[in-house]
Amino acid sequence: MAMLVASRRLSIGSRTVTTSLFRCFSTSFREERDTFGPILVPSDKLWGAQTQRSLQNFEIGGERERMPEPIIRAFGILKKCATKVNMEYGLDPVIAKAIMQAAQEVAEGKLNDHFPLVVWQTGSGTQSNMNANEVIANRAAEILGHKRGGKFVHPNDHVNRSQSSNDTFPTVMHIAAAVEVNLRLIPNLKQLQTSLHSKSIEFKDIVKIGRTHTQDATPLTLGQEFSGYTTQVKYGIDRVLCTLPRLYQLAQGGTAVGTGLNTKKGFDVKIAAAVAEETKLPFVTAENKFEALAAHDAFVETSGALNTVATSLMKIGNDIRFLGSGPRCGLGELILPENEPGSSIMPGKVNPTQCEALTMVCAQVMGNHVAITVGGSNGHFELNVFKPLIASCLLHSLRLIGDASSSFEKNCVRGIQANRERITKLLHESLMLVTSLNPKIGYDNAAAVAKKAHKEGSTLKEAALNLGVLTSEEFDTLVVPEKMIGPSD
Amino acid sequence: MAMLVASRRLSIGSRTVTTSLFRCFSTSFREERDTFGPILVPSDKLWGAQTQRSLQNFEIGGERERMPEPIIRAFGILKKCATKVNMEYGLDPVIAKAIMQAAQEVAEGKLNDHFPLVVWQTGSGTQSNMNANEVIANRAAEILGHKRGGKFVHPNDHVNRSQSSNDTFPTVMHIAAAVEVNLRLIPNLKQLQTSLHSKSIEFKDIVKIGRTHTQDATPLTLGQEFSGYTTQVKYGIDRVLCTLPRLYQLAQGGTAVGTGLNTKKGFDVKIAAAVAEETKLPFVTAENKFEALAAHDAFVETSGALNTVATSLMKIGNDIRFLGSGPRCGLGELILPENEPGSSIMPGKVNPTQCEALTMVCAQVMGNHVAITVGGSNGHFELNVFKPLIASCLLHSLRLIGDASSSFEKNCVRGIQANRERITKLLHESLMLVTSLNPKIGYDNAAAVAKKAHKEGSTLKEAALNLGVLTSEEFDTLVVPEKMIGPSD
Amino acid sequence: MAMLVASRRLSIGSRTVTTSLFRCFSTSFREERDTFGPILVPSDKLWGAQTQRSLQNFEIGGERERMPEPIIRAFGILKKCATKVNMEYGLDPVIAKAIMQAAQEVAEGKLNDHFPLVVWQTGSGTQSNMNANEVIANRAAEILGHKRGGKFVHPNDHVNRSQSSNDTFPTVMHIAAAVEVNLRLIPNLKQLQTSLHSKSIEFKDIVKIGRTHTQDATPLTLGQEFSGYTTQVKYGIDRVLCTLPRLYQLAQGGTAVGTGLNTKKGFDVKIAAAVAEETKLPFVTAENKFEALAAHDAFVETSGALNTVATSLMKIGNDIRFLGSGPRCGLGELILPENEPGSSIMPGKVNPTQCEALTMVCAQVMGNHVAITVGGSNGHFELNVFKPLIASCLLHSLRLIGDASSSFEKNCVRGIQANRERITKLLHESLMLVTSLNPKIGYDNAAAVAKKAHKEGSTLKEAALNLGVLTSEEFDTLVVPEKMIGPSD
Amino acid sequence: MAMLVASRRLSIGSRTVTTSLFRCFSTSFREERDTFGPILVPSDKLWGAQTQRSLQNFEIGGERERMPEPIIRAFGILKKCATKVNMEYGLDPVIAKAIMQAAQEVAEGKLNDHFPLVVWQTGSGTQSNMNANEVIANRAAEILGHKRGGKFVHPNDHVNRSQSSNDTFPTVMHIAAAVEVNLRLIPNLKQLQTSLHSKSIEFKDIVKIGRTHTQDATPLTLGQEFSGYTTQVKYGIDRVLCTLPRLYQLAQGGTAVGTGLNTKKGFDVKIAAAVAEETKLPFVTAENKFEALAAHDAFVETSGALNTVATSLMKIGNDIRFLGSGPRCGLGELILPENEPGSSIMPGKVNPTQCEALTMVCAQVMGNHVAITVGGSNGHFELNVFKPLIASCLLHSLRLIGDASSSFEKNCVRGIQANRERITKLLHESLMLVTSLNPKIGYDNAAAVAKKAHKEGSTLKEAALNLGVLTSEEFDTLVVPEKMIGPSD
Repeated sequence: MAMLVASRRLSIGSRTVTTSLFRCFSTSFREERDTFGPILVPSDKLWGAQTQRSLQNFEIGGERERMPEPIIRAFGILKKCATKVNMEYGLDPVIAKAIMQAAQEVAEGKLNDHFPLVVWQTGSGTQSNMNANEVIANRAAEILGHKRGGKFVHPNDHVNRSQSSNDTFPTVMHIAAAVEVNLRLIPNLKQLQTSLHSKSIEFKDIVKIGRTHTQDATPLTLGQEFSGYTTQVKYGIDRVLCTLPRLYQLAQGGTAVGTGLNTKKGFDVKIAAAVAEETKLPFVTAENKFEALAAHDAFVETSGALNTVATSLMKIGNDIRFLGSGPRCGLGELILPENEPGSSIMPGKVNPTQCEALTMVCAQVMGNHVAITVGGSNGHFELNVFKPLIASCLLHSLRLIGDASSSFEKNCVRGIQANRERITKLLHESLMLVTSLNPKIGYDNAAAVAKKAHKEGSTLKEAALNLGVLTSEEFDTLVVPEKMIGPSD
Repeated sequence: MAMLVASRRLSIGSRTVTTSLFRCFSTSFREERDTFGPILVPSDKLWGAQTQRSLQNFEIGGERERMPEPIIRAFGILKKCATKVNMEYGLDPVIAKAIMQAAQEVAEGKLNDHFPLVVWQTGSGTQSNMNANEVIANRAAEILGHKRGGKFVHPNDHVNRSQSSNDTFPTVMHIAAAVEVNLRLIPNLKQLQTSLHSKSIEFKDIVKIGRTHTQDATPLTLGQEFSGYTTQVKYGIDRVLCTLPRLYQLAQGGTAVGTGLNTKKGFDVKIAAAVAEETKLPFVTAENKFEALAAHDAFVETSGALNTVATSLMKIGNDIRFLGSGPRCGLGELILPENEPGSSIMPGKVNPTQCEALTMVCAQVMGNHVAITVGGSNGHFELNVFKPLIASCLLHSLRLIGDASSSFEKNCVRGIQANRERITKLLHESLMLVTSLNPKIGYDNAAAVAKKAHKEGSTLKEAALNLGVLTSEEFDTLVVPEKMIGPSD
Repeated sequence: MAMLVASRRLSIGSRTVTTSLFRCFSTSFREERDTFGPILVPSDKLWGAQTQRSLQNFEIGGERERMPEPIIRAFGILKKCATKVNMEYGLDPVIAKAIMQAAQEVAEGKLNDHFPLVVWQTGSGTQSNMNANEVIANRAAEILGHKRGGKFVHPNDHVNRSQSSNDTFPTVMHIAAAVEVNLRLIPNLKQLQTSLHSKSIEFKDIVKIGRTHTQDATPLTLGQEFSGYTTQVKYGIDRVLCTLPRLYQLAQGGTAVGTGLNTKKGFDVKIAAAVAEETKLPFVTAENKFEALAAHDAFVETSGALNTVATSLMKIGNDIRFLGSGPRCGLGELILPENEPGSSIMPGKVNPTQCEALTMVCAQVMGNHVAITVGGSNGHFELNVFKPLIASCLLHSLRLIGDASSSFEKNCVRGIQANRERITKLLHESLMLVTSLNPKIGYDNAAAVAKKAHKEGSTLKEAALNLGVLTSEEFDTLVVPEKMIGPSD
Repeated sequence: MAMLVASRRLSIGSRTVTTSLFRCFSTSFREERDTFGPILVPSDKLWGAQTQRSLQNFEIGGERERMPEPIIRAFGILKKCATKVNMEYGLDPVIAKAIMQAAQEVAEGKLNDHFPLVVWQTGSGTQSNMNANEVIANRAAEILGHKRGGKFVHPNDHVNRSQSSNDTFPTVMHIAAAVEVNLRLIPNLKQLQTSLHSKSIEFKDIVKIGRTHTQDATPLTLGQEFSGYTTQVKYGIDRVLCTLPRLYQLAQGGTAVGTGLNTKKGFDVKIAAAVAEETKLPFVTAENKFEALAAHDAFVETSGALNTVATSLMKIGNDIRFLGSGPRCGLGELILPENEPGSSIMPGKVNPTQCEALTMVCAQVMGNHVAITVGGSNGHFELNVFKPLIASCLLHSLRLIGDASSSFEKNCVRGIQANRERITKLLHESLMLVTSLNPKIGYDNAAAVAKKAHKEGSTLKEAALNLGVLTSEEFDTLVVPEKMIGPSD
């Protein structure tokens, strides 16, 4: 199938490498048509002419860059709901039911192989909308006993009825993102929060040295330290939830430019209700359809929340790898689970690999956020045409943060142990316990004690007794780290 | 005052240029002391030893890079409130009142010249906290009839009592940002929203051609187009407001590492209440002080909201400059106010300069957002030490968006006029009105009409009649742009 | 194969959806071992224990997130070369030749299905290095008539001999990136440059109105306009080439921390030479191995060059879509190729979809650049552990820019036509031709002419004659756009 | 001077705060005129009508946001050079010499107070160009004994002769940036490189434990570690230098749209030569003026180099603060200079404040880079109108990196000492020395030794003897860290 296979000969040294951008093993074809004329399509595929054209016109990035699966599934949901509403407005019930059945298959991911288009296509996502229309139309026709390509069920007139790519694509973007937030991201972040909170409780009595500016500081408990992480994740969840009211707004019903031309009054409200019922999520029709087509500020906003979550997780991942650094020459306060050999050259080495995967994900999410921001800011007039990019990046970020949070929780946080011996040793060596002497001997004397101990490598107590600023009993009464972990009465 | 003046000889060509990084016209000095020993300070300045050291150790960026004024003012507010609370806990009322009076002067910006430190200092903002402590202590001493440098009022023991830089600096960050949001950003965005909304009403009956993919599309009203902008700004305000609950949380009371060591129980709650009373903003004590010192996710979050606002304003600014492009060779649908000559070489040229200033601000805000994200993600253990950077960038963004929104509203939006003649001309030339023929003659015939008209440069009507697909009367009945701007009944 | 299949039940509304993160249809297994003990591996796969562990420990992102193919191929190249050099240092030639044969298969992409690991793994890429070692060892063993998992050829002792993940992974990063730059990016950018240059020549005599601030300005030729684009792409190529000297430096020979422990002197130089010979690219051994492991500044740098290219292409893509906007209500100076139907609701609509795909790619590249920067800045001590992220993002950017440049060139630039009629009409309507009157009647009179014409909607000539500032003949002599497109003699 | 003072009443709590955005203490005014009519200007200022209008129309950001000084100085250089060339083309030498004298004063920074405009103005920088023209014209008139505002020397006809803002502003951008690179950035980076290299030599015999994944690894010397930093800075310099060929290209001579209308042939070459002579930097005329006005890719490129430098410095700053962490509970291998007291609550605390300032600067530079990228990608047609933003951000980054490198070098790197005792202690406790046993007892036995020692908290030697895998003498012969720091013969 020469027409389909975009092969590329890359000559590396003496070798020649052929990469097939779009692998296709079809051996037979059928003819499909659109307003540009006829075109050959692989017989075993449900897509039609417009999908085929896009496949040939946008050889960018290869298979990896296919439109994300949540978008495909959301098209299934939307087309099913639109057809349900169109029935109310007079669409033939026989055709409608076949469409709904086909759309359900799309929603369940059963027809994923029939969605070959990449993200890098028209900026309105028109070609993916037509891909959905074509696949559903052909599949519905088959259900009704007709053959593919015959347009017994018509991609535009039936499946896309009262719709435009300009409102369907933003609609599936919102459905896909809201579903991912609710079913993947939030549950996984909550599990991480719960697990960090458990550690915070487990470690609540372990007093340890604090560190500010990476330097020794006054003590706190390891539980308090983990309570900070827990709070970060908790607020992260709040931040994402705060953005949902705008994600739940659906553009459907705006059609080409936001006016709703070629729809009936009330269509927009009904379809949002149908999607809400189908997904059990509180979708509503967008308050202003012009904004909903021309801008994707809602995605920039949600991406901003993810960017904040990434910031939090980067901090947590960094702390945990440093607190677990060693085993002999680092801080060594935490013992992280050993999941795999760490080095092929250094026997016995174990690395904080879950922290590494997590923090790499955070960097990617920060990058995607910039891509979304750039795309979001470049809309013109009635339509933003960076839609597939924006959708792809946000769904990428949602998936990565969701999965990585889960992996980090399961393979790292849950198994973290405190190295109590090491923690106690460091705590008692610290010079910053001197802070508790301030009220008794004053800041200047306390500073002198700390500096003497530092200079001579002695303990604070030795230095204090040596300077004669207080007695051994006084020292022991005052320097009690366990009393330094909260305000006084 | 050789010691103070960091001069730098830059040789450009044959010339030698001297730049004074820190201009200083002092001719006399006094000695101030800290734990590192004595140091000379200009006599006419209220700052002390630690400020002076920072000035000499961080010659980075010059005067422009001084800690932003809202931070200085917030230090005034905080120190006044802290002292009020410290009185309750036993601070000598005579000293306390002098401190409060001095702090009030700082809060009012009267002592700005005594805050010479730049953003690029210690990452905890300790040096700016000490700058505030030193200036207030010296000023309070003066108020009480004592001389500068004498420490009758002590910067640490009195002004900084029960505080640490690690909790005061995040506290002033939050105060400064929340004040800027409430007093500058939100009012200006609201004014912009109001003004855009007025235009939306003013233009509600002007039917114009829509544009998607920058190409001609079906019509809408100019009012509808502006309603999209209005909604973007309205949601932008919502987005910023959504972040306030976390901005209103104050770290004060956490002291060095979040535990509240050296404070009394309840100090944190009282001080937040005092700040709330002083500012009339609903500040509360942070739920978790460890998070409040170690992370600045709240700033990353608010910056994310501003990034979304910037995305919106970039879109609006771009649309308006393109819609106002011309006067002869552009789109020319809007007439923008002429505020100044546009060109020194082209007579009569007027440019959309307010759009340009606005969109440049948006780019800066997007950049600042990345800086804040990088800073926010790099905290370690009990303290994030990118505080001055984070504070500076967010305050910069708040100021710029606030001011630019106001300037854009006042000098551009308010005066925008519709070029009705041009709008009508373009509308009636458009081929996309053909869309309204679909129901009557079908998509294929309609496409044929449009393509014929496009090819021949004729009107749609001419092409339609020529093709014989409908009569003149039918055409006139069907092709009515005014009926194409909403769903049908 | 329950162990392998990470399935996830997502409940959407009433439906239950199962996504298999790692689809696997194996029905039988063999046991493989590492220092952590035995583990089951699918019989039909060549990978071993460490790959299998990573697969189970890092369920992040799914199949799409697999390590990019150029990395896999580069592992093939590297392992082949390392083995060639190891033979010189005493590796058994029988085993060596089998390894080289197996490695060659990896280099050709024949064993891609045996590289299941995702980017989000350990930050050193150790697991992908072990994946390569295991696959090659098992394949080499098979070649020699031994069975998989038997370690007749040992992944560590033979395939990874004298290597550490810490030097192999940066080495394959550099090989993969340099190959992509040379074989995909540069040729495609050059083709784009050539095509833009051809248009510049083709359009060299078409005088058109210039636009600054999006407003009408003095004229230039369409060829001059395209010469600007050509220069941008030309400099973009230079920018990328400028970064190659640092990309050609290979870390191999640094082993675990950069010292080269467990290698022989000269190993590093020999292996770089072998890779250079194999790839016909001028690779050399890195001047400083500590830098080469601990930092990936070279990738940040190359990404910076791509970011600049993206900036250029964004500008070009935007210009072309605006210049091609219309057909009736836009600028309409260019006629872009029609590749597919543009709208399912608006008959006859054609959109600048290639510009859209291109500019979306640019936004992604800008985002990836930030991700790479964040990853690149977060190395610690002897190793940067954001390697897979950095590699993945740069290769993504290289592929996207390379492919999109090609698609844009082939499907858009090559077919652009000038709408000469429209261009001429706009040119002669423009008021900015008045600029050529300055020398004759002065800036003030010229401004009066332009303002009068603008106000009254008349031509410049009408206004000029009406104001009596010059005669008809004088006007015709002076206002000649063709004379305004260059400096005077 | 009510007209000038844009005051703003901000009500915080019960107080009312007045901020003067543009402080002005003038008490008398003169009238200036432009094509928009007359306007009052402070008598003591040299600027004219267009500057005054901009001041009133762009109240954005306040004084801090004034156009950066290097731009003002570059205007002085350019106007001087342009006038020198214009004399050749017939400009009256009396007027020309006065202009050159006035321009020289601008170049020397003597008239900085007469440049009040902010960055956030028209995107072409026209208003700052007119500010320069007006100030120089008025000053030149004074020099010739005429009064301000009288236009004896005309801002447009004389000072701006043969120029347009559209070519002057990019020209001063390039001059300013190239001067800053050469006179501030490169020398300071070189000094940092030298200082790091000295440390590398000083520490060349100190064997220490390596760390990968933040975990203990095989040893290297402290000198080797610093050689990595040195190489990063060295390559950073190379990266910046690589971008200079494009920075040295000047747009001057392109006038309004790049064609050079209203200049004479050769003007562009002559003016570049004059600037080169004046600055002793190899400026040339831009190869393509259309590119030079419409795009600022050269600035995006240089910013990309700075972004890479920031990445390097972030890594170095982080390493040094972690290696210097402690004094008791951190890694403690380096002793950093103590420059100031670190804490007001913790006596004796010293913090790595220079690392903090440096890394904050790096974050800002990364952010500025995104701002520049966004601005650079948003040019349209013949002019990019994000010029002041792009200029401001790059100059900000250049200044910050230059100054911070110098501060870091002087106040930190130069004074770093190795804590030899601590380094040796950690080295000998490390379990990763076990790697040197591999050749003798095999990877599995070596791993067993390391794991036993880790589990029991014993030394490697104790564990090895206990397991009976080798003798005490053998151990002592094999485990010699000093032999582990390079390849073997």
